Amino acid sequence: MPGDDAGRAGAAVSAAPAVADHLGAAELAALHAHWRAANYLSAGQIYLMANPLLEEPLRPEHIKPRLLGHWGTSPGLNLVHTHLNRVIAARDLDALCVWGPGHGGPAVLANSWLDGTYSETYPDVSRDRAGMELLFRQFSFPGGVPSHVAPETPGSIHEGGELGYSLTHAYGAAFDHPRLLVACVIGDGEAETGPLAASWHATKFLDPVHDGAVLPILHLNGYKIANPTVLARIPEAELDALLRGYGHDPVHVTGDDPAAVHQAMAAAMDRSLDRIAAIQRRAREEGATDRPRWPVIVLRTPKGWTGPHEVDGQPVEGTWRSHQVPLAGVRDHADHRHQLERWLRSYRPEELFDEAGRPRPEVLACVPEGRRRLGASPYANGGLLLRALPLPPLERHAVDVASPGASLHEPTRVLGGLLADVMAATAARRDFRLVGPDETASNRLDAVYRATGKAWQAATLGTDEHLARDGRVMEVLSEHLCQGWLEGYLLTGRHGLFSSYEAFAHIVDSMVNQHIKWLRTARRLPWRRPIASLNYLLTSHVWRQDHNGFSHQDPGFVDHVLDKSPEVVRVYLPPDANTLLSVADHVLRSRDYVNVIVAGKQPSFDWLTLDEARAHCARGAGVWHWAGTEDGSRDPDVVLACAGDVPTQETLAAADLLRRHLPDLAVRVVNVVDMARLLPAGVHPHGMPDSEYDALFTRDKPVIFAYHGYPWLIHRLAYRRAGHANLHVRGYKEEGTTTTPFDMVVRNDLDRFRLVMDVVDRVPGLGVRAVALRQAMADIRTRHHDWIREHGTDLPEVAEWTWAGCAPG
Amino acid sequence: MPGDDAGRAGAAVSAAPAVADHLGAAELAALHAHWRAANYLSAGQIYLMANPLLEEPLRPEHIKPRLLGHWGTSPGLNLVHTHLNRVIAARDLDALCVWGPGHGGPAVLANSWLDGTYSETYPDVSRDRAGMELLFRQFSFPGGVPSHVAPETPGSIHEGGELGYSLTHAYGAAFDHPRLLVACVIGDGEAETGPLAASWHATKFLDPVHDGAVLPILHLNGYKIANPTVLARIPEAELDALLRGYGHDPVHVTGDDPAAVHQAMAAAMDRSLDRIAAIQRRAREEGATDRPRWPVIVLRTPKGWTGPHEVDGQPVEGTWRSHQVPLAGVRDHADHRHQLERWLRSYRPEELFDEAGRPRPEVLACVPEGRRRLGASPYANGGLLLRALPLPPLERHAVDVASPGASLHEPTRVLGGLLADVMAATAARRDFRLVGPDETASNRLDAVYRATGKAWQAATLGTDEHLARDGRVMEVLSEHLCQGWLEGYLLTGRHGLFSSYEAFAHIVDSMVNQHIKWLRTARRLPWRRPIASLNYLLTSHVWRQDHNGFSHQDPGFVDHVLDKSPEVVRVYLPPDANTLLSVADHVLRSRDYVNVIVAGKQPSFDWLTLDEARAHCARGAGVWHWAGTEDGSRDPDVVLACAGDVPTQETLAAADLLRRHLPDLAVRVVNVVDMARLLPAGVHPHGMPDSEYDALFTRDKPVIFAYHGYPWLIHRLAYRRAGHANLHVRGYKEEGTTTTPFDMVVRNDLDRFRLVMDVVDRVPGLGVRAVALRQAMADIRTRHHDWIREHGTDLPEVAEWTWAGCAPG
Repeated sequence: MPGDDAGRAGAAVSAAPAVADHLGAAELAALHAHWRAANYLSAGQIYLMANPLLEEPLRPEHIKPRLLGHWGTSPGLNLVHTHLNRVIAARDLDALCVWGPGHGGPAVLANSWLDGTYSETYPDVSRDRAGMELLFRQFSFPGGVPSHVAPETPGSIHEGGELGYSLTHAYGAAFDHPRLLVACVIGDGEAETGPLAASWHATKFLDPVHDGAVLPILHLNGYKIANPTVLARIPEAELDALLRGYGHDPVHVTGDDPAAVHQAMAAAMDRSLDRIAAIQRRAREEGATDRPRWPVIVLRTPKGWTGPHEVDGQPVEGTWRSHQVPLAGVRDHADHRHQLERWLRSYRPEELFDEAGRPRPEVLACVPEGRRRLGASPYANGGLLLRALPLPPLERHAVDVASPGASLHEPTRVLGGLLADVMAATAARRDFRLVGPDETASNRLDAVYRATGKAWQAATLGTDEHLARDGRVMEVLSEHLCQGWLEGYLLTGRHGLFSSYEAFAHIVDSMVNQHIKWLRTARRLPWRRPIASLNYLLTSHVWRQDHNGFSHQDPGFVDHVLDKSPEVVRVYLPPDANTLLSVADHVLRSRDYVNVIVAGKQPSFDWLTLDEARAHCARGAGVWHWAGTEDGSRDPDVVLACAGDVPTQETLAAADLLRRHLPDLAVRVVNVVDMARLLPAGVHPHGMPDSEYDALFTRDKPVIFAYHGYPWLIHRLAYRRAGHANLHVRGYKEEGTTTTPFDMVVRNDLDRFRLVMDVVDRVPGLGVRAVALRQAMADIRTRHHDWIREHGTDLPEVAEWTWAGCAPG
Repeated sequence: MPGDDAGRAGAAVSAAPAVADHLGAAELAALHAHWRAANYLSAGQIYLMANPLLEEPLRPEHIKPRLLGHWGTSPGLNLVHTHLNRVIAARDLDALCVWGPGHGGPAVLANSWLDGTYSETYPDVSRDRAGMELLFRQFSFPGGVPSHVAPETPGSIHEGGELGYSLTHAYGAAFDHPRLLVACVIGDGEAETGPLAASWHATKFLDPVHDGAVLPILHLNGYKIANPTVLARIPEAELDALLRGYGHDPVHVTGDDPAAVHQAMAAAMDRSLDRIAAIQRRAREEGATDRPRWPVIVLRTPKGWTGPHEVDGQPVEGTWRSHQVPLAGVRDHADHRHQLERWLRSYRPEELFDEAGRPRPEVLACVPEGRRRLGASPYANGGLLLRALPLPPLERHAVDVASPGASLHEPTRVLGGLLADVMAATAARRDFRLVGPDETASNRLDAVYRATGKAWQAATLGTDEHLARDGRVMEVLSEHLCQGWLEGYLLTGRHGLFSSYEAFAHIVDSMVNQHIKWLRTARRLPWRRPIASLNYLLTSHVWRQDHNGFSHQDPGFVDHVLDKSPEVVRVYLPPDANTLLSVADHVLRSRDYVNVIVAGKQPSFDWLTLDEARAHCARGAGVWHWAGTEDGSRDPDVVLACAGDVPTQETLAAADLLRRHLPDLAVRVVNVVDMARLLPAGVHPHGMPDSEYDALFTRDKPVIFAYHGYPWLIHRLAYRRAGHANLHVRGYKEEGTTTTPFDMVVRNDLDRFRLVMDVVDRVPGLGVRAVALRQAMADIRTRHHDWIREHGTDLPEVAEWTWAGCAPG
């Protein structure tokens, strides 16, 4: 047990009535039996590959060759699960639990096997002796299951591998599920992470009327891998102040005597759920609008509780030594093996399981029925609850395009209109949310405020705008919370979009990794139903962060995502407003993907009508015949390829210059919307066959590719193509600073003038006129440098450029 | 002003004596003059490009064409700076300030110009009329300076672009600088981020004896871009509990009347600094060992304070409308321009600056002298303080290598010995720290505990090991804190190493981006002296996270870093213990880089003696003649290239198989340690010329490249090389799961058997013996699959494989 200076000794519930008899004797015995059974099954998974019921003395061959999984956290998780079972059954709750502690897989698997859901999901792991042996054997075994909670685990929405996201996932699950209770076990190790530390403030965003409840259970067992934890080693009064500061009303449960802790935990659960019910009743029936103080349970029990107390003379139970495997070398050392056997037999398995290995009725007395079981919660298999999103006809929002480049629109503002329609259409269903770090208006999506407000439960002032207790726009200055809330929301069967400044999407690199891994794995599990895709709108992008400077300029999120599982990742760079609408419509209908859209918010040229945009997006990449000067009789002399709105503009301006100055040059313009199309057909589901690639880009002509991000990404995608040696890519090469929009492209050699120079440099035999053009281009770039330093604005001929139309000049 | 339900009205210092007369009239007048001057200069930077002293009525051509920068936070930052000036001068403090609020650049630049450091750093921006005009003009102007605090800003160690890292930087700066006071202004927007929320707990890691002090100043002005902030809209009692829960003793300053706020702020500063002095005296002189409750100041003032109160009938001062530019369109609209002029004249510039534009003496009365000025703090230009790290002779730690592959060592454990020596050699100097998320022992660096402990100020128990109040190993389960602490430590002139599980390094992707950007910019500023490099040791890597499963498998941090500025980034994959020592020695001596080392912790073969390792690392890539079967008379038939410890092992095992089964095949083995060597010479400073690349890899022979991470990275580095079309790369392709170590390489086609098959597939004319070999390889891979599912361990012939030496079999 942690010492007196770190916490209070003995079982207790702060400021609660005496709890020695909260449970009757029979109920206490049943809960204790369930807990012992779960503990036995947890230890069994870590150690055994045979003899699961200890029907014979333990021999080396019963022991796994490699001991994995974390015992330390398991008894605490089993305690929580056992007590959740009790209150769910007693109160007939819709519930879900998010299990934060990293490698506590054995505990959650044990409980899922006990409540029968594991065997229903995986019939070969039956709820009997044979199934128990398989349960044990498969744990952390090749071809088996991971040592932490994962997509394979029934009832889970949260991978226990990378720590920090349990509480934000829990809130995401609770939003717009008013009947749902989301319990969330937070380990004291995880509590040290930034995302978790910020997640506590979600109390200011949870609407007691339209959202469900989150019950955080902070599990202090005192240690992470090799160190004490911060929250376990501050005085209880300080921890109490911290939790009150987060807006909670803490209930403390502390102890190491099982019976006393059962009583205290049962009382704490009942007190917390009574309080949640009262909060919801006040808000829903009495119209209370004050922000409630939601309960939180602080559970302080020994690490590796009920495991070996000492090993080789060293204390183990209650210390960091029981974090992982408290007894090592049990296969080779008889002493340790005997100690393991004594430990396992201390749970009295013969009282818990019958001769066939089935849990005895007393063990299962606390387990709820059917879909009430945590392992069977439909909320944890969100595809079961998912409904198609009501999307408006795109015609309602499309911009008129009389001819390419004849008008300007802010693409994200146009998208905002579509999102407003979606918000309005889901006003009653409440299954769509928009998340973003305080940038919804900055990113010009503010039309959504016509249909809903920004979720806000804290104090309001007269000057505030668009705040609403029931708002479905989520704004908090934490990309981690935005991401985690949206993940939790999607995983429980709803839809959403995350809009972010492009550069700062990297803040959630590691979170999106884990979500992609989740989806990759879940897609391969037939029982997991498809969920709505995680959709990013990256705007305020590198080329138009000229004013905010180098720190705001980074197009690398696309590179990061494209490293990941091709089954899951999709990247779109729509070049104008109508293509953005078409792409957004597509991704909002899609399932089980991570879709990244990069699109600007500044006024930019409209190139395609809605019909053209739909056709172009369906192809993902195509020739813009109207922009080039091919006559169709032969291969072009050069291909100008582009992806992204600013590169498309620069490419068309370059094509315009070439048409006027080198009218005999056959130029083809290719625009790419769907980046994965550049990959070979076998590598990504969207990859195009070589024949199609060659038909677009030619096999042997120079290709000048103006790309939105790091130029080597295009090479990484296209290096297997026949024409790769002729591919010359321009893009962002970390030449960032505070400057003008056009200077950004000049600094990175992506500007129209440089593209023309590239054409002259790479197309052979163009003659003296081309040499003169090249010099003129170089001269204007020099003039540009002088001009911006003098005037602070771009050259008028650049700022006022418009597409000249199809007629050669 | 925020309303009553959000905070208390009126100026106040909680639980402090009455403060109406803390300052005398003359001192108050001087502080107010300085503040007015700073406010005037801040607004001037945002708006003006001429007529800086308003010597004539404002005309459109005096106004910048584009209005950038954030006014909202500036008056508050100016207030803090003014009052820091006072206490630094009065108490003769070594001080540094970290300015968190994003775009508060105008304020910090204004103060730096006022205290003279700006003009000393940039003589053309003189402290007079001409310099003021340039100061205004250059702000957020092409060729000028960013709108937020940046490397260009004298006195800064913290970029204000991406929010969340101010407080962790402040602590990093304070560690091991016992005389230093680090003030840290935290915006209430930034306070919502995860990294900031976690940073408060650094109070459990700051040693009052050996470290300096951090004084957080939480600046609540109520709004982020378009929304209220969480901390400004919870009741003050709740905020107070939160800060006490973090371990602080809060002092609240609230108000909108400048004179009252000056009095309250001066009293709060004095009270806080008295308390810090008392804490340090108790710990340093009286031996107190209890964890102190450090002060924190909560400063609640209106957003855009002293700016336009209303614009076009809408309230602006004190609302989100003054977040950025409170008056837009001043160039075109005379009304707004007149309002701007009235606003600027409200500071009475003629009282603040003399006819030559120089600040009058009263304005500068509070400013400290020389290096005491915040703009001149040597701590903010850490290279001034940096001393070379005392590194031991590598011979002391090198492992004996009788012949390649004859012995096994855990490379990181060997490195741990070197790090222990560095810790011991810096015991008195205290300028080296090791940071990691609870993984120092797991990553087998625990030898360092011979020389120092783990920093820990919270409660301890008898079972704890290696905890020490003065420890220089920093373990906290937050990669964000590890990264931020180390950045702050390095930026203020010290050395360090961050060890992390490879997969979870992505958690700090965005932080390392910003640090790389900082270094790229700082390297181009002659006045910024080089600082020690930021060194990562990524271990527990993808190939040996077989047991932890898919969530722990990700080699992409290298890809992320290699997207960034080539001047700054370096990536090393040492294949064994001695090469790791050589690389570590190199990076610990280097300056202004971000070095990423990927190296395993599991027992692995020693290939090179120390001398060989040094020579190999100096080259960065080279032929391992002893491993191949070339006779030197001609080009090899095939090149087996490798980078990373596990790929090197698989490559040598493949070479071993080829030697035994196809003895006539001329095989060359090339190992790459320094990944940037694969880039062309002009692209990265380490890039090798084509002639060298061709000599290593040939221009036309098949190259089978076994790479540690994503295979396309090698293509992205080498796509311009002559031999690229013959380059076939194997690496991690997201085929992760819970399995055995060897199954990980099999699943990703990186195993020795697959490499042999690749050779047979790609070298023409090998004949029937090769066909039979290929089939044998395919058969053993099938046998492998069956074996691991049965036994849970790798095939004995794989597990027991050793390098057979140079003699063909």
